[in-house]
Amino acid sequence: MSDYFPVQKIAYEGPDSRNPLAFKFYNPDARIEGKPMRDHLRFAAAYWHCMRNPLADPFGAGTAITPWDDGSDSVENALRRVDVFFEFLQKISIDLYCFHDRDVSPERGTIQETEQVFDQIATRLRQRQDETGVSLLWGTACLFTHPRYAQGAATSPELGVFVHAAAQVRKAIEVTHLLGGQGYTFWGGREGYNTLVNTSLQREREHLAAMLHMAVAFKQEIGFGGQFYIEPKPQEPTTHQYDSDAAACLNFLREFGLLEHFKLNLETNHATLAGHTMAHEMRIAREAGALGSIDANQGTPNCGWDTDEFPTDLYLTTQVMLELLAMGGFTTGGLNFDAKRRRESFEPLDLFHSHIAGMDAFARGLQVASAIRADGRIEEFVAARYASWDSPLGRRIEAGEASFAELHALALQSPAPTLHSGRQEVLEGIINQYLSR
Amino acid sequence: MSDYFPVQKIAYEGPDSRNPLAFKFYNPDARIEGKPMRDHLRFAAAYWHCMRNPLADPFGAGTAITPWDDGSDSVENALRRVDVFFEFLQKISIDLYCFHDRDVSPERGTIQETEQVFDQIATRLRQRQDETGVSLLWGTACLFTHPRYAQGAATSPELGVFVHAAAQVRKAIEVTHLLGGQGYTFWGGREGYNTLVNTSLQREREHLAAMLHMAVAFKQEIGFGGQFYIEPKPQEPTTHQYDSDAAACLNFLREFGLLEHFKLNLETNHATLAGHTMAHEMRIAREAGALGSIDANQGTPNCGWDTDEFPTDLYLTTQVMLELLAMGGFTTGGLNFDAKRRRESFEPLDLFHSHIAGMDAFARGLQVASAIRADGRIEEFVAARYASWDSPLGRRIEAGEASFAELHALALQSPAPTLHSGRQEVLEGIINQYLSR
Amino acid sequence: MSDYFPVQKIAYEGPDSRNPLAFKFYNPDARIEGKPMRDHLRFAAAYWHCMRNPLADPFGAGTAITPWDDGSDSVENALRRVDVFFEFLQKISIDLYCFHDRDVSPERGTIQETEQVFDQIATRLRQRQDETGVSLLWGTACLFTHPRYAQGAATSPELGVFVHAAAQVRKAIEVTHLLGGQGYTFWGGREGYNTLVNTSLQREREHLAAMLHMAVAFKQEIGFGGQFYIEPKPQEPTTHQYDSDAAACLNFLREFGLLEHFKLNLETNHATLAGHTMAHEMRIAREAGALGSIDANQGTPNCGWDTDEFPTDLYLTTQVMLELLAMGGFTTGGLNFDAKRRRESFEPLDLFHSHIAGMDAFARGLQVASAIRADGRIEEFVAARYASWDSPLGRRIEAGEASFAELHALALQSPAPTLHSGRQEVLEGIINQYLSR
Amino acid sequence: MSDYFPVQKIAYEGPDSRNPLAFKFYNPDARIEGKPMRDHLRFAAAYWHCMRNPLADPFGAGTAITPWDDGSDSVENALRRVDVFFEFLQKISIDLYCFHDRDVSPERGTIQETEQVFDQIATRLRQRQDETGVSLLWGTACLFTHPRYAQGAATSPELGVFVHAAAQVRKAIEVTHLLGGQGYTFWGGREGYNTLVNTSLQREREHLAAMLHMAVAFKQEIGFGGQFYIEPKPQEPTTHQYDSDAAACLNFLREFGLLEHFKLNLETNHATLAGHTMAHEMRIAREAGALGSIDANQGTPNCGWDTDEFPTDLYLTTQVMLELLAMGGFTTGGLNFDAKRRRESFEPLDLFHSHIAGMDAFARGLQVASAIRADGRIEEFVAARYASWDSPLGRRIEAGEASFAELHALALQSPAPTLHSGRQEVLEGIINQYLSR
Repeated sequence: MSDYFPVQKIAYEGPDSRNPLAFKFYNPDARIEGKPMRDHLRFAAAYWHCMRNPLADPFGAGTAITPWDDGSDSVENALRRVDVFFEFLQKISIDLYCFHDRDVSPERGTIQETEQVFDQIATRLRQRQDETGVSLLWGTACLFTHPRYAQGAATSPELGVFVHAAAQVRKAIEVTHLLGGQGYTFWGGREGYNTLVNTSLQREREHLAAMLHMAVAFKQEIGFGGQFYIEPKPQEPTTHQYDSDAAACLNFLREFGLLEHFKLNLETNHATLAGHTMAHEMRIAREAGALGSIDANQGTPNCGWDTDEFPTDLYLTTQVMLELLAMGGFTTGGLNFDAKRRRESFEPLDLFHSHIAGMDAFARGLQVASAIRADGRIEEFVAARYASWDSPLGRRIEAGEASFAELHALALQSPAPTLHSGRQEVLEGIINQYLSR
Repeated sequence: MSDYFPVQKIAYEGPDSRNPLAFKFYNPDARIEGKPMRDHLRFAAAYWHCMRNPLADPFGAGTAITPWDDGSDSVENALRRVDVFFEFLQKISIDLYCFHDRDVSPERGTIQETEQVFDQIATRLRQRQDETGVSLLWGTACLFTHPRYAQGAATSPELGVFVHAAAQVRKAIEVTHLLGGQGYTFWGGREGYNTLVNTSLQREREHLAAMLHMAVAFKQEIGFGGQFYIEPKPQEPTTHQYDSDAAACLNFLREFGLLEHFKLNLETNHATLAGHTMAHEMRIAREAGALGSIDANQGTPNCGWDTDEFPTDLYLTTQVMLELLAMGGFTTGGLNFDAKRRRESFEPLDLFHSHIAGMDAFARGLQVASAIRADGRIEEFVAARYASWDSPLGRRIEAGEASFAELHALALQSPAPTLHSGRQEVLEGIINQYLSR
Repeated sequence: MSDYFPVQKIAYEGPDSRNPLAFKFYNPDARIEGKPMRDHLRFAAAYWHCMRNPLADPFGAGTAITPWDDGSDSVENALRRVDVFFEFLQKISIDLYCFHDRDVSPERGTIQETEQVFDQIATRLRQRQDETGVSLLWGTACLFTHPRYAQGAATSPELGVFVHAAAQVRKAIEVTHLLGGQGYTFWGGREGYNTLVNTSLQREREHLAAMLHMAVAFKQEIGFGGQFYIEPKPQEPTTHQYDSDAAACLNFLREFGLLEHFKLNLETNHATLAGHTMAHEMRIAREAGALGSIDANQGTPNCGWDTDEFPTDLYLTTQVMLELLAMGGFTTGGLNFDAKRRRESFEPLDLFHSHIAGMDAFARGLQVASAIRADGRIEEFVAARYASWDSPLGRRIEAGEASFAELHALALQSPAPTLHSGRQEVLEGIINQYLSR
Repeated sequence: MSDYFPVQKIAYEGPDSRNPLAFKFYNPDARIEGKPMRDHLRFAAAYWHCMRNPLADPFGAGTAITPWDDGSDSVENALRRVDVFFEFLQKISIDLYCFHDRDVSPERGTIQETEQVFDQIATRLRQRQDETGVSLLWGTACLFTHPRYAQGAATSPELGVFVHAAAQVRKAIEVTHLLGGQGYTFWGGREGYNTLVNTSLQREREHLAAMLHMAVAFKQEIGFGGQFYIEPKPQEPTTHQYDSDAAACLNFLREFGLLEHFKLNLETNHATLAGHTMAHEMRIAREAGALGSIDANQGTPNCGWDTDEFPTDLYLTTQVMLELLAMGGFTTGGLNFDAKRRRESFEPLDLFHSHIAGMDAFARGLQVASAIRADGRIEEFVAARYASWDSPLGRRIEAGEASFAELHALALQSPAPTLHSGRQEVLEGIINQYLSR
């Protein structure tokens, strides 16, 4: 293992530790509801933020200190980054990772060269996976950085761009398959529009569907068993992304006959930019049988763009874990830290600090969620609240067996219905009890 | 005709008129694209805002001056309001209207009594329709004002509330049918949740679907030929409404097999609260064949709640009319002014002033939209932008006949694709030309 | 003491209690940093939300069950509400309260009658204060509900409205003085505009200043020793309130020579509607020596209007308490629950549940804030971060004794400055440690 | 003159022109209210967006085609850009420009070298100014791009950064003076915080004031007669900028005794990000005697970040021109296009298209604003609305000569005040009349 980070493997020291380079809550082997924390949480690290994010923003150059990176596009540099990344994964105790093709491997002048270099890097990734036991949560293709994708990839008005994107996605799925990836994600980087005035919205949506159908066919052709995900985001970079939120994605998948082939990869900051809570998006996806994986981060309160902060809000992590536990846990998915250190946290050690903050917050959220479930008060309250629907009449209505005539007749002879308090404030107090112990 | 408003029928006086009680742009019989303005615009007035909105807000009592209303719940008062409303419609030259059951007719102690009173009022409405030639654009049931609906109607945790709501909807559809209504709208007043903590989201959505399926069966049973609409809104009064935006509604309709029976009634201020433009929501609905009718209003810029201002933004009205003209115009739908005068515009005459402002804005938007279409520059630009897709390859991809293998091979031998400028700024300048003449 | 609420005085039972009608964290006599919790927190209840809020919203009628209230405007009913309120205060262990004149006492046909009734009610309030030891945190006048204030009170375009408002404020201050009020608050209910098109902004601001100057003179004349507050809010009910946020209020107070006479009463939900965090608003006010009192509540995430939820977010309460402890605690101010139960929490007991949730959240926030201070890591980090400014050069610059010439010369010969990581993620992790124990 | 753009000087062709490379409304010599359009509008171009913006965004690389730029940091390249820029100015008929030091001149390894290069570039700028008659509206220093400024410049926790910033500002003012600049702008690039947890807010604000005081002293020392501006922005890049809006800036300037030395440079997109309208910010600044200059652009509706679109909304430009005409026009300020073409409008010609769109929109706004003033209906309405204040009593209150005792006595004997409708809808209709002719 390389030794670019002057730290030891991060250890669990418990909630009273004052050591910034220790876990306070994340104890991988501690069992909760019969399963080790590591299996509940399935943490993944994002290659792009860890290795390729210079911490630039629209108003300033990168600040990140990366002594291992010579700034070049050489294969040597790319291979060295692989080593550094796996050192990081080992030391931070994360067993899964995610990447875009262009994060790990530079683009060259022709597709042939680009693919050849990609194969070299993939070989190194495979080696490091084998050596360390780390595996690939999902891969994806970067279809938004290069100027050719300025007006979309699958939804570009230019046919040649679609063709190029198809070739790129094909290769990215192939490499993901080669690396034993458990999934593959489609994030609609610029699949949207900046102004409707110059846009054929439906034609673009049809092109996007055509691309996804080809991907499904290719997946079957090569025997790739990983899960396909699409990832909702309402805007940024485009003014309106087609995959704007969970409901919009489900509508799209239903419209084009793709629902059986895709699940959703939900990201917290995307949920909040769409005007939803993360819990809402998870619930919508879960009830549709389409909750796949999670990009774990959080937005900065009051900021209207995608800030991708590390998730440290314990209310958020508790809610996420409540939904996951209710679903029975991840199958192919995981908690991928699609989060970047603040631009002011530019030292190499901040990679550790920020992941520790996020991992501890989710470990703590898991503890709290599990305690709330064990307590049972909230679940009982909700069951009681809907108890009237468990009656024969309720069941008949739910089964589609009632009619207006029947219910009208019934209403005429019924007393006025009475409501019971929703007790929101009591339930919030119960959550605070468990957050505080 | 009663004479509660000291004004004559509002006349068209042309763009230079300084008479506040005259139309400057709305000339009902002027023909545009071969059809009179009135048939393009199909204006409707909202009974609730015209007759039942006291102009209260959460911080203050009503300010509206309504000398015809004695403030009582009597049938006489309700009948007098009908007369006043039809006087208003006549004088403002609006041929369509919309109502909630409780706007026109008060609730009584029992369903029987309530329905009996409703029948009396409906008879008067029918009379006035016949006398004036006004017709009913759509009716609806108010399922959100009464405390019984505090936790939803179809989505209430209390079965008895669902039953009561079913009876109420049944009657509202029946009366709408009786009045020759061209449609019936479901707005999910409180069909949503305030906190997920106490909510069975999917069970509530299933109950909503059950209600709508019963409504479809009832409609067929009584032979009601009007169009059913659902109306998206993201929040307010609840924290999250299930029908949050057009895509969420379409997803819901597809999930529960209801898409063939429903179209959308889109409201501008709801679109913007959902983080969309009205043009976006219209395009999404139109492309799904589900653009039905429009609640015409606008939000106050920078305000995060439903302000329901009268629509006076000519960019907005131009965009709406562009979408409508592209669709070939309304079939059953219309432009219903779901808009309220400001609380500071409390005089009876302000009912006229505000509708004139909105009607003129839409008439002007129609003129501008039609001129933009006649000009052709924007349409030509968009066609040229996607021209590469009209090639044999483009058509094959659109038909689902291409594969990754084929496109990969093609990409390997293709030159780098080139893009053309999206020319957004030029297109915006063209729109400004037509707004200014 | 009356007995309208079927509960005993709420007791502290500790963090493990499952009794919804007990405090889990608020232990009034427990000492923190040498002072009992009750003296740190200085909780106050709001007469308007407890006694006069029917839990209506713009889309529906009130749901609150209030068996003690006969719905009339009679003096008897008003006096009975006083008794109920003091019973509530006693049972919930809150020692302070706030009111608007019209909350406690109805308006009559003439000012004379209105004032006479107000005096009767004030006598009863005084009695109950004396019997119970409860005191008045602050009083205020309701200058926004009555239609006469539809276009503002001090800022109305109508002179007669200003005169009426002056008379009303005069009386409200007089009664507040009589009741030994520790302060008096000016919340600019409709002191703002709905559209600039019809508004003389600066003339209105000058009128507002004239009103406040008269209030200062009156205060001195009658010897009222309480603190005057103004309360920022960015919008709602008006489109733009003149007191939009802390900085806007300070600017106004400086412009009109009023800064020495006023402090700010900050409300959480107003801060967030203005696009700030509550901590920001508190810091701005505190550094200006103008942090007076707090309206304790919180907004609903993702909702763009003033929802006035009970404050249960422990991050919020911790931040508030950190600022208060840093200031040395309240002098005249307190934590007034300007918060309403959800419309779905309509039972009388929900008044208790909701206040318990808020009081426990602030008690817990106090514990966490105090623990963070005792820990010292954050404070040390911040001190170290600015250490370079404690040098002689830093001090000279801060004293205004340096010049560009000097610094330019210095820069020419200095090495490139180096930065240190801001460690935001580490600091957030420390806060989570204290929230979790 | 160089010849990098294959276009002629843009000519005015009138509102019916279909030539995209012609002005439809901007006719520089056309006189409005006795002054040529060019003198009303005082358009300026921004060096950064025209010459240095590659049209990158956080998700993708630059797309702009700039054949004149070899991508290097060489002096030759910088000088060539000056030539290209002046060619652009000449051809687009803009007589003023603005720059940051680092836009025109690259940073070198030492301050000495950097300043030396800057002097070379300044000489070329001076030459081109003299040849063309173009002048400098304002200069500024870029204190946010370089990593040294990651935590602020004047407000950096690191003293050495402040010293470096002071040296840089000193030089930028000196060069601005040398070029005859009519002003100098301070935009607080990163003068704010990302989290309060690690920030000494007041100490940072004091450092900012110290920097500005030194700038004032330096200005006087060198005899620079230009106007100093500060530019409000609420957030981005930092989470909270100290100069968040006009009121916050005025409060800061008053607090630190700087108000007489500074005016505001207001930017539309910053206003809307702060939750205000541009008209509001202009009115606030104008009434404080502090409206200096304008950064002309607009935000994308529904996007929560600084999109800097070219201003094409005629309502916006009309409102801006109404405020400017009411102020008597610019003195030192101008309309600086701090606007960037969309990333999809990447061709060199799009520089022309986008400026034409913005210039035409402002020329049209000027026409409309002037017509509204000539019409007089709105002004008369507002005067009448406040007429009651022009009475002796109103004047006495405004003069601070009335008391609560007097007004209370008066109110007791006055009839209930009556209000008049605010007629917002009528006024909006009048504006639409003038937009449409």
